[in-house]
Amino acid sequence: MQHTLIKDILVSKPDGRTVDIYGWVRTKRDSKNLCFIEVNDGSCFASIQLTFDREKAAQTDSALIENELKKITTGASVHASGKLIPSPASGQAVEVALERIDVLGEASAETYPLQKKGHSFEFLREIAHLRPRTNAFGAVGRMRNQMAFAVHTFFQERGFNYVHTPIITASDAEGAGEMFQVTTLDLKKIAENGIIAGAKGMKAEKAAELVDYTKDFFGKSANLTVSGQLEAEAWATALSRVYTFGPTFRAENSNTPRHLAEFWMIEPEMAFFDLDDDMDLAEDFIKYLLNWALTKCTEDMAFFNERIQKGLIDTLTKVASSDFKRISYTDAVKELEKNNDRFEFKAFWGCDLQTEHERFLTEQLFNKPVMVYDYPKDIKAFYMKLNADGKTVRAVDVLVPGIGEIIGGSQREENYDALLSRIKELSLNPEDYRWYLDLRRYGTVVHSGFGLGFERLLRYVTGMANLRDVIPFPRTPKSAEF
Amino acid sequence: MQHTLIKDILVSKPDGRTVDIYGWVRTKRDSKNLCFIEVNDGSCFASIQLTFDREKAAQTDSALIENELKKITTGASVHASGKLIPSPASGQAVEVALERIDVLGEASAETYPLQKKGHSFEFLREIAHLRPRTNAFGAVGRMRNQMAFAVHTFFQERGFNYVHTPIITASDAEGAGEMFQVTTLDLKKIAENGIIAGAKGMKAEKAAELVDYTKDFFGKSANLTVSGQLEAEAWATALSRVYTFGPTFRAENSNTPRHLAEFWMIEPEMAFFDLDDDMDLAEDFIKYLLNWALTKCTEDMAFFNERIQKGLIDTLTKVASSDFKRISYTDAVKELEKNNDRFEFKAFWGCDLQTEHERFLTEQLFNKPVMVYDYPKDIKAFYMKLNADGKTVRAVDVLVPGIGEIIGGSQREENYDALLSRIKELSLNPEDYRWYLDLRRYGTVVHSGFGLGFERLLRYVTGMANLRDVIPFPRTPKSAEF
Repeated sequence: MQHTLIKDILVSKPDGRTVDIYGWVRTKRDSKNLCFIEVNDGSCFASIQLTFDREKAAQTDSALIENELKKITTGASVHASGKLIPSPASGQAVEVALERIDVLGEASAETYPLQKKGHSFEFLREIAHLRPRTNAFGAVGRMRNQMAFAVHTFFQERGFNYVHTPIITASDAEGAGEMFQVTTLDLKKIAENGIIAGAKGMKAEKAAELVDYTKDFFGKSANLTVSGQLEAEAWATALSRVYTFGPTFRAENSNTPRHLAEFWMIEPEMAFFDLDDDMDLAEDFIKYLLNWALTKCTEDMAFFNERIQKGLIDTLTKVASSDFKRISYTDAVKELEKNNDRFEFKAFWGCDLQTEHERFLTEQLFNKPVMVYDYPKDIKAFYMKLNADGKTVRAVDVLVPGIGEIIGGSQREENYDALLSRIKELSLNPEDYRWYLDLRRYGTVVHSGFGLGFERLLRYVTGMANLRDVIPFPRTPKSAEF
Repeated sequence: MQHTLIKDILVSKPDGRTVDIYGWVRTKRDSKNLCFIEVNDGSCFASIQLTFDREKAAQTDSALIENELKKITTGASVHASGKLIPSPASGQAVEVALERIDVLGEASAETYPLQKKGHSFEFLREIAHLRPRTNAFGAVGRMRNQMAFAVHTFFQERGFNYVHTPIITASDAEGAGEMFQVTTLDLKKIAENGIIAGAKGMKAEKAAELVDYTKDFFGKSANLTVSGQLEAEAWATALSRVYTFGPTFRAENSNTPRHLAEFWMIEPEMAFFDLDDDMDLAEDFIKYLLNWALTKCTEDMAFFNERIQKGLIDTLTKVASSDFKRISYTDAVKELEKNNDRFEFKAFWGCDLQTEHERFLTEQLFNKPVMVYDYPKDIKAFYMKLNADGKTVRAVDVLVPGIGEIIGGSQREENYDALLSRIKELSLNPEDYRWYLDLRRYGTVVHSGFGLGFERLLRYVTGMANLRDVIPFPRTPKSAEF
């Protein structure tokens, strides 16, 4: 079977040949002589129009078709066939002169939740299994696919190797972030053993004895990863250029449009790249992704531009053609201090930049993407390369108009002694980082990388306001439906 | 900086221009007048040869170089430069006449675990952070990258959309497979509460009351996914053709070369595809992947063919050019029964096919890949399309010589009533599948899909015997290192 997708039929010649259409009815408009049915198969934004002309149809066909038409409501699945002809209607080059239609699956007008009228995104989140059938979520799904393939293509063109870093990990990569525990221990059994031990007089402070991680699947406590970076470094110091693209997790109890408990992250890691190379790559990467969206996804982007965020295409086009401004954290803070009257949080050297600061820099002061580098070491992670000043590290945040930070990266500390003393300084256990230190013990090299949250990118590219609406099935506090 | 990778230098003209080399030393061979250093950067299998000719070198250069040479051992990282010239040695077109070399990071010959001699794969698993620096694991890493990109390219070329299905799930997709629990509940606290409650006289059979899932992150018990199929179906019944490619999990306590607790799976799902279409796609897919490996990864494949599995390239070439045999389960069992004297497990209608049966079919009887379809419903999952005979379902397993099953798939039950009664028949809770049933309630369509374990594919393509050696950081019982 392997039928032709509607996206391919819509761009083919209306030469009168018979075509088969498989999809779901979006609308049916019926009048005395004419019936128009819009059918969509999700292969593209547009639907194809089936036109049934009662005056032209053969009597036998007609009876069959009329019988099926009665069953057709929004959401019904159909197989139709007819001649592909030029369309007199505006906005579509071709249509199908209906000769036969079969309803494969009905969708009761009384109960099908997706009727013609618009629905709030909040409501659609409750029916996340059906929302891809709407214009907005079909478009988001296709954009997500396009952006994912753009990510892979960008790196493949540049000699990077895709690496699958582990999802389950016994270490906390960044020494930061609340983590989900992964276990095969029986929680009810632990409670039961507690009750029995308590009855026999065990003291509550000995509770840890009842949680025997040597019996857990991995023989120790394990968690879901918050980042694949450290493992990616192991591969970068062997294959030179690698990237990860996989799910990462935060057990942060934040119920906001900017947080997800499960999200996808892209983390390139490059041997022999210093921070300048890292910034060059980050800039190329953002521009490449935006250009891909603007040139390969025109139909879906037109929808986002018109219905989700006015001016979106102009904003992205401008970013894609800008030279990103590079400024040190120290200089950026000087600029911010001059404008401290604008900010809720006053900027000062040593402060973590707030979204209001980031957006001021990129939207007001420079009016283009900005890369802020050389941050105070105390607000950045242990693995970042210490500068000669002893105070700042070779970190960079990439800020874009409309959203603020979109990428965070750094040159990594490649000096064994410097890294070890930083680990000790932060009271981390060097034994937990033994293998990571090995990468500096044997054939160490300057290397750098960065991280891009895939949903953050999608939010930027589509203009969708809530991260929950750019991932198929969002996981958030109190919600893991479907 | 963004230097040129060795793979690009190796295929460029030896025109005497100065090139910069960044990488890790594989070997150094020193004699009176000549010193040869092989440098590898992981961008390709081959190393590039640096040649230092003591008779030709300028005195000043010479002293500097000699000083660095002393520090060079296997594993040291270097930056070298020199003229790219034709190589007199066999097996390499170009080499570098060394003019300068800097050791960036030493690798102590006493402690660096990867000396020239071969190491067992068992030993290398213990240093999984360093093993990508070996020939075998560098090659595996590049193959993994190539095969992943081949997967994406195959589906993108055919109008599929990549969908990220959830990793954390509150449902058990297949009603099968042991799952990992994901939680933010404090296990020690549960034990503690048990001790306190026990001391106050609580009965052990009330233990469940102490595990309050309404307090867990998702407000209910959650697990790691075993398959993205059901969620992929939701997207296939909107975008027509989708695929997943993500991590899946089994908490199965199996310590064998054929099991991983965490592995990557590819699951295409297609609306309007029946089982024949599904089999066509599976056959195309396998051939496409093998052809990609054979034509785009020749250097790494030559290594696997020579050092890992003799005859590998012939085997894969033959599979890639075969017409896959299609045979019903019932007919296959008849053939097996004729040969039951060969088998440890005797075949009979209704039995699950064992690896020995699968390999007999594909290696002995047909000597080519075999697709066995229409399995007894009792040995297959609830969602598979019931045949008119009421006994078999539209399932297919794809068997290949040398490995047995590589793909499992099916046409899905699209009839609401049939699916519901199957769910009830298996004592599953229909409420848990409410959203899945909705896909049949509204605009239901014939649809099909299959699953390919990515590590199983890699094992087949590389000839590596153990799944732990085709994933960067394997997760297995008692092991979640790195």
